[in-house]
Amino acid sequence: MQAERADAILGFLALADRLKSVERRGRVVLPDGATRRENSAEHCWSLALIATLLHQDVAGPLDLGRALMMVAIHDLVEIEAGDTFAYDAAGRATQAAREAAAAETVFSLLPPDLGARLRALWEEFEAGETPESRFAMACDRMQGFLQNVLSGGIAWREHGVTRADTAPRMDPAIAVDPAFATLIGRLYERAEAGGLLGPAP
Amino acid sequence: MQAERADAILGFLALADRLKSVERRGRVVLPDGATRRENSAEHCWSLALIATLLHQDVAGPLDLGRALMMVAIHDLVEIEAGDTFAYDAAGRATQAAREAAAAETVFSLLPPDLGARLRALWEEFEAGETPESRFAMACDRMQGFLQNVLSGGIAWREHGVTRADTAPRMDPAIAVDPAFATLIGRLYERAEAGGLLGPAP
Repeated sequence: MQAERADAILGFLALADRLKSVERRGRVVLPDGATRRENSAEHCWSLALIATLLHQDVAGPLDLGRALMMVAIHDLVEIEAGDTFAYDAAGRATQAAREAAAAETVFSLLPPDLGARLRALWEEFEAGETPESRFAMACDRMQGFLQNVLSGGIAWREHGVTRADTAPRMDPAIAVDPAFATLIGRLYERAEAGGLLGPAP
Repeated sequence: MQAERADAILGFLALADRLKSVERRGRVVLPDGATRRENSAEHCWSLALIATLLHQDVAGPLDLGRALMMVAIHDLVEIEAGDTFAYDAAGRATQAAREAAAAETVFSLLPPDLGARLRALWEEFEAGETPESRFAMACDRMQGFLQNVLSGGIAWREHGVTRADTAPRMDPAIAVDPAFATLIGRLYERAEAGGLLGPAP
């Protein structure tokens, strides 16, 4: 490896470290029972763990390396564009444009071959048309839902999220594979038993 | 997927979430310039990103999915055993026994087939004898070093770590592949230029 290539990679990694300061709405329960907001780097790790656990339970061939690379890089655009809450309609309306601009900035720091490869992976994740990107998407949505269940639905209640509000996020994940249907079904049961999701208006 | 299997996986994921509260000595620089300790979940994500960036720059065939699974699970034992600082000789002396006991506790929460698979991956990582585990180890050590460089060597200075102290950790990583030799070499140059590593006694 040439020194210039090494320096470009190290510069990118320095920028990527900021993902540890991008806060999501979902919360992490601390050892003393208090909670704090989860950051996007932690979210990406949880997602990788979910993908590691589930990849052999889903039907059909899957390139796990490709799926896990997507998981690792899918939120890097948030360094520039910020995290957009799943149930923030106004934020969602501008999200695609903000994130496309961010992708331009973030991936261009890398050596061109690597930048093009990561950008293509991110676009594949966003398009959601391959088995790997659909699997990664389902893990992503399950993780966000699980984090809310684990933390007593604080973020849901803060934003008045109902079961009906979650359907457009969760139904596509459930449709990916029966394994996700079972897992997310169990999480819905816990959310309802705990009164974590608000009643329909 | 059966409901019992789903519940065992969800129970494991609830425990795994505690990795977000296991603090390392290395520090994350916040947007305002202050720093906080990095947690092990964030570390695992950084490691996955490094592996994603470097896997095509290292020589020899590599099962990236296997390497990224190891990265995702390699620190789960810290939920029970805590993080052991790289330069804490007393902690290092008891680390293997503490982590083996933790592996027993943590992986036994999973359905038996999954628990055995994750445990085997963790043992493969620890043994460091396969191309995937050697690659993951090199990414792991480079990440810890990089985090100290990015955060101005605070943890190194707090513990009086010298360049000689880092050699037993970094030399095996450098030996994995010339790409790591270049990257870690550049990081040593930055550490020395910034006076981040203490002088030899």
